[in-house]
Amino acid sequence: MAPVRNGRVIFNAYPEGKLANSTLLLNRSQPAEYPIPGETTVYDESAQIDTATVALNGGFLVKTLVLSIDPFLRNRMRDPQAKDPSRRGNSQGYKLGEPIDGFGVGVIVRSEVPDLPEGKHVYGFIRFPAFQEYTIFPPSAQLRIIEKHPDLQWSVYVGAAGMPGQTAYGGWKEHAGAKAGEVLFVTTGAGPVGSFVIQLAKQAGLKVIASAGTEEKLAFMKSIGADVVFNYKTTDTRAVLEKEGPVDIYWDNVGGDILDVTLENTAIYARILVRATAYYALFAVLTVIPQLCGAMSGYNTGYVPVKNLNMAYARSLSLYGVAVARLAPIYAERFYDEVPAKLASGEIKYTEEKSYGLDKVGDVLLAVQKGTNKAKAVIIVAEE
Amino acid sequence: MAPVRNGRVIFNAYPEGKLANSTLLLNRSQPAEYPIPGETTVYDESAQIDTATVALNGGFLVKTLVLSIDPFLRNRMRDPQAKDPSRRGNSQGYKLGEPIDGFGVGVIVRSEVPDLPEGKHVYGFIRFPAFQEYTIFPPSAQLRIIEKHPDLQWSVYVGAAGMPGQTAYGGWKEHAGAKAGEVLFVTTGAGPVGSFVIQLAKQAGLKVIASAGTEEKLAFMKSIGADVVFNYKTTDTRAVLEKEGPVDIYWDNVGGDILDVTLENTAIYARILVRATAYYALFAVLTVIPQLCGAMSGYNTGYVPVKNLNMAYARSLSLYGVAVARLAPIYAERFYDEVPAKLASGEIKYTEEKSYGLDKVGDVLLAVQKGTNKAKAVIIVAEE
Repeated sequence: MAPVRNGRVIFNAYPEGKLANSTLLLNRSQPAEYPIPGETTVYDESAQIDTATVALNGGFLVKTLVLSIDPFLRNRMRDPQAKDPSRRGNSQGYKLGEPIDGFGVGVIVRSEVPDLPEGKHVYGFIRFPAFQEYTIFPPSAQLRIIEKHPDLQWSVYVGAAGMPGQTAYGGWKEHAGAKAGEVLFVTTGAGPVGSFVIQLAKQAGLKVIASAGTEEKLAFMKSIGADVVFNYKTTDTRAVLEKEGPVDIYWDNVGGDILDVTLENTAIYARILVRATAYYALFAVLTVIPQLCGAMSGYNTGYVPVKNLNMAYARSLSLYGVAVARLAPIYAERFYDEVPAKLASGEIKYTEEKSYGLDKVGDVLLAVQKGTNKAKAVIIVAEE
Repeated sequence: MAPVRNGRVIFNAYPEGKLANSTLLLNRSQPAEYPIPGETTVYDESAQIDTATVALNGGFLVKTLVLSIDPFLRNRMRDPQAKDPSRRGNSQGYKLGEPIDGFGVGVIVRSEVPDLPEGKHVYGFIRFPAFQEYTIFPPSAQLRIIEKHPDLQWSVYVGAAGMPGQTAYGGWKEHAGAKAGEVLFVTTGAGPVGSFVIQLAKQAGLKVIASAGTEEKLAFMKSIGADVVFNYKTTDTRAVLEKEGPVDIYWDNVGGDILDVTLENTAIYARILVRATAYYALFAVLTVIPQLCGAMSGYNTGYVPVKNLNMAYARSLSLYGVAVARLAPIYAERFYDEVPAKLASGEIKYTEEKSYGLDKVGDVLLAVQKGTNKAKAVIIVAEE
């Protein structure tokens, strides 16, 4: 077989000195410089691969099918040498001149690993697949073999049936302690995690307050059962919570000021599940755990301090950090047994926004950072 | 019987403008103006009471035996009209011209309540007994009848066998999730709560790191089993935790910067139990819950914001607010069944510093605020 194109998305430059203001970026850890298509990342078609003959060195060759564009990718675009600690990255960030990576699904096209034969589909947590059409993995690569529900597309497996779904499912099961009649508040409730949480809460008999930033998102949240929806850009969160709260469970997808406002409006014994800022910080911090220690404070400088933590004892609150990297393995079997079937049947609803081709990655990265995407952003790299 | 003196400690003036610097007050919510004996509070002997004839109006008359001087009393000395929100009090603060109140033990000398007969001893949570020699309570007063262990003195029942002990006991049972071999860090480890926590942790097989501010306190912490003790005034907390940690359980008695430093040095799945600032804030906030809402933010202005809460998801932390007002009732039976006997046998060790007479209250209030007391401060008001 002749060599074929192996298109790649190369990390070309740290996004610096560019744009500034965005409501999406409020309360978030990253500096507000957007990744610029063609500049921060570059789509490159110069590489080729002969899938029939390329040396696998004991590993396996995967053809990428779908890739997930998640907000946290931006957090891996930080310069480890940056003078400003709030902009500084760590050793696990993207390398200039190399393809970026993230969550995705692919199909094995050739393999020297007996447990991972040709034709199997794999889902990767982090560093897989690299954003390229074909990737050779070492035998030690931690990938999960997944089988597709006949009524779902592979794209769902990086969204509601992937990391975002696992975040909602694992965090809820582990920490929510939900009781019927309680009040949930969730921010970015139209996102892949937030919308999943809304539905888990409604199934548990809770009253759901949910916020988002566009009328379209409010309508979607209503359609999946949220009782009270509001646009956080035009409606004061404090006023809503004072009227509709107090809040028994806060699923925090944004952190910062909204967390402080919510802490003021908690019920006794409320549970606070923090993620969001997480969404950015998780991978920056998780991946650096082995090297940890003194340097850690540098990673934190960019975060908005929490002022109302004294509410914790005033109200006997419990606050939990939701880290999908640790929850996903614990709940994986239950999740895959239960969730894809419910997504296929429509019992759990989801949305996604597909773009086709690796050449679209730069645009979608920017849209996700600006919040102009309308649903979970997915790149369809190839049909099978 | 002739009337007898009913000495009282009157709240005379808000402590303001007496600015002062104190390491004790770092990270704490109150302004650093100390209560001045004879000025903030005044001991008054002008009142008399005829214990045999005074009208009880269906209530009962208590002779005060011991009173507890706790740090949080200072937080009730705030002016509800103060312009600076960080100094402002709420409606539950002490009233100018009236006796202060707090925790104490007394004996019923006359009663019109069948369940609370003469001769029984009562322990009061808050607003009992007022700091006076005799107090008439309404029948609805929420007091607990307690019986003294023959080998303990009543003073212990406002310390290790009272609110501080209940804080440690309830918080530990409810939230610590301790496993042998884990590492505990506790601040103000020589205090009545901290020293109790150290011993609970050692009994559970943990390694204990404990901090305090004097050599005498370090020696005491060693004597009750702490493995690593250090003076936070002369030793860098971060350096100790980097060497001896990471921390699996942090019992936070101080909040603020030390909480942030500890968050940087937590193990995965660590539990953070926050109180301390609590110690001040609890009553300010708990008591105002019914009136709550918009004004709440004003109470918080004085607190040090927490910068490293992003560690919550990075490390899958759980953070719990320890509120003795809610934990004490839940654990009361177990606590009184178990703890006084262990205190009497020496299985749990405690310290206390007694002062004799209500005229000493002003001096002891100041000492507790300055941190110059050497152990749990107790006022012996009367022998039986």
